[in-house]
Amino acid sequence: MGIVFTGITAALGDPFTVKRVDIRIEGNTITTISDSPLSPRPQDTRIDGDGKLAIPGFINAHTHLPMVLFRGLADDLPLTQWLTEKLWPVEKRLTADDAYWGALLGLVEMIRSGTTACSDMYFHVDAIGKAVLESGMRAVLAYGIIASRLDNHGKSELARAEDAITAWNGAGDGRITAAVAPHAPYTCGKSVWQSVVTLARRYGVPIHTHLAETRTEVADCYVRYRKSPVELLAAWDVFSVPTIAAHCVHVTPSDIAVLAEHNVSVVHCPKSNAKLGSGVAPIARMRAAGVNVAVGTDGAASNNRLDMLSELRFAALTAKAVNEDATLVPAADAVRMATTAGAAAVRIPAGVIAVGNRADIAVLDLSQVETVPVYDPLSSLVYAAGREAVCDVIVDGKFLMRDRALTTIDEDRVKYETKRIAVSYKT
Amino acid sequence: MGIVFTGITAALGDPFTVKRVDIRIEGNTITTISDSPLSPRPQDTRIDGDGKLAIPGFINAHTHLPMVLFRGLADDLPLTQWLTEKLWPVEKRLTADDAYWGALLGLVEMIRSGTTACSDMYFHVDAIGKAVLESGMRAVLAYGIIASRLDNHGKSELARAEDAITAWNGAGDGRITAAVAPHAPYTCGKSVWQSVVTLARRYGVPIHTHLAETRTEVADCYVRYRKSPVELLAAWDVFSVPTIAAHCVHVTPSDIAVLAEHNVSVVHCPKSNAKLGSGVAPIARMRAAGVNVAVGTDGAASNNRLDMLSELRFAALTAKAVNEDATLVPAADAVRMATTAGAAAVRIPAGVIAVGNRADIAVLDLSQVETVPVYDPLSSLVYAAGREAVCDVIVDGKFLMRDRALTTIDEDRVKYETKRIAVSYKT
Repeated sequence: MGIVFTGITAALGDPFTVKRVDIRIEGNTITTISDSPLSPRPQDTRIDGDGKLAIPGFINAHTHLPMVLFRGLADDLPLTQWLTEKLWPVEKRLTADDAYWGALLGLVEMIRSGTTACSDMYFHVDAIGKAVLESGMRAVLAYGIIASRLDNHGKSELARAEDAITAWNGAGDGRITAAVAPHAPYTCGKSVWQSVVTLARRYGVPIHTHLAETRTEVADCYVRYRKSPVELLAAWDVFSVPTIAAHCVHVTPSDIAVLAEHNVSVVHCPKSNAKLGSGVAPIARMRAAGVNVAVGTDGAASNNRLDMLSELRFAALTAKAVNEDATLVPAADAVRMATTAGAAAVRIPAGVIAVGNRADIAVLDLSQVETVPVYDPLSSLVYAAGREAVCDVIVDGKFLMRDRALTTIDEDRVKYETKRIAVSYKT
Repeated sequence: MGIVFTGITAALGDPFTVKRVDIRIEGNTITTISDSPLSPRPQDTRIDGDGKLAIPGFINAHTHLPMVLFRGLADDLPLTQWLTEKLWPVEKRLTADDAYWGALLGLVEMIRSGTTACSDMYFHVDAIGKAVLESGMRAVLAYGIIASRLDNHGKSELARAEDAITAWNGAGDGRITAAVAPHAPYTCGKSVWQSVVTLARRYGVPIHTHLAETRTEVADCYVRYRKSPVELLAAWDVFSVPTIAAHCVHVTPSDIAVLAEHNVSVVHCPKSNAKLGSGVAPIARMRAAGVNVAVGTDGAASNNRLDMLSELRFAALTAKAVNEDATLVPAADAVRMATTAGAAAVRIPAGVIAVGNRADIAVLDLSQVETVPVYDPLSSLVYAAGREAVCDVIVDGKFLMRDRALTTIDEDRVKYETKRIAVSYKT
């Protein structure tokens, strides 16, 4: 009872070899990739790959799932005003039930756009975890810690972070793992960061944080600590634990060397950085320096899509534009950032289509008008296809979407509940 | 026998007022916009507007339709190499039949993404005109002149440009108009530009050209003429004729003042400029100076989409990113650039939903997962919706797409023919 793709064009291995093959999935694993035709067994689900492209599912390496409830609530505002005047007030009113339905809505959108894993940082982690568990998605969950000191509030934040780890690390037969997520160097103090490192070491989980997102953050950090945010975390020995650093928009060449030296994975969130006026992260320079650069959508409130395909396209195009160099971040590299590099960043056993790997696969139909003609399938994917081309999504060997129909989530119910919830946030 | 939208959220007027109304279309004209319910007559087509947004159809103010045949043929290359080594060689082999099917493919993609008019510059104009006529799209057609002198070749180029005007200006009950299109200041000499101005005056048509697209073009222009491309055309009195200038990526504050003074309309093609590494046009500065800035996709070979929705989103986000200012090009302005400003640029009687105007309307279904919830319909449009949300497209009072089904073009035939043609260009 497996899945067999026949005659499908697939982006195999790392770096990609794009060719037409048959692929067999058994249990949660890719067991055969063959140049010659495979014979589906009676109980296998057979997918005709003609006109289709199979890729490792996208890995959204930095997001805040329930924020999809606030999609379009406040736009065209700078980050600080957006966060303090608009987002934090509504987030205070967010209930666990809201977060659960919001997370499901975000997961539906991600599945529909070919995403098979996400790395989330938020509160109401139990509600999010429940939604992820039901959805069949692979995820890394973390509670976002905001605490300047280890006072009662700080200790409570760390306790919640630890609760999230013990509750969710390894859940769903290992589909869900955990991270520790201090929000940022400017919202968490030194003692909190030190406790975070201890916690991460104790449970063997990575740290997931926001880093060097805005020019203001960097300037304030120099004033307060006489160091850049990257230098500060390095000085506090944070990078002795595997670290996932979202944004890194404002980093110096010396910061980039520090990130590379400590194997910090950077999550590029180009649309959120653009929409909030934060800037354009120097991903070409970071990648040239050997930094592992993944891609994330950030929360839908600052994007406003949870669509990795438009995110990786935006990453490739903005890198070319701001550096005035068309050769930067070519198509295959853009896909790699959103798949293989994402898997390495958030430490999940997927991201490459290869025998023995977990079967986390997205399939796109490239025979529609929007992608005709196809000279190079990866070019079609990166520069032409939209999320409407995604037809099948498989995680851990199971269909989450088949022929554009979701198999694990009641989409109409999710729309109904989230519309109901959104009414209360409308000002 | 008209069309009546009931209870539809619509972006009315200029600037936009977004509200729920009923709209009646009779013939090719919007005849009623009403806050109270309209009664459809027996022969009217009634569209339930619940959950939908009506906007003026997008106006793709700079494109080269048949180049969709070369979508993905050559990527990640700088403009000069891409043009001289890849595109020009295949364009030499392009037949009128190829151009016809290519134009239809481009038109299908445009209609599916809510575009109701385009301004095209290419060769094989008769083939393109035939496709546009059949499609029901509104268009401004022009033959792209490349000639350094008024020698035999130059005269032949101008004759072709004039033929295109006489054949197509006013065709399709005025749905099609014409322009004169000298390719660029670096590909057409002074005497050619002077003849172009004469031709444009004689027929009362605008000039459509490429201007200040790359840093190299500007540098070469200074070497050759001691002027910027903008200054050069101003000195040659080109701007005495209404001019549509695509790109304007590398313009100085003084160039911008010249463009504003002469009412030159700029067509911003941000994705093409990004993909070819040309840079990011200073649209915020141009708009602040009073320049009319429209939006275009350019040809699909350098984009690789003919999707105005992703184009206007890219325009808004890149303006915010490179200026590090989230308040620049807010949602309503982005939509205006792709509709009202486009209509003004290419001089067509559409672009605003108002009584008495031509009925060129795109309708989007905002009730899908990808746009839920909707706090502000224009925000949903600009930052969240994809072209898959477009459900109905009306041009000149006629449906080109109804409930996502095309009414004027046999999509399967177009896919079949263009795939057949593409095989011969595959290297």
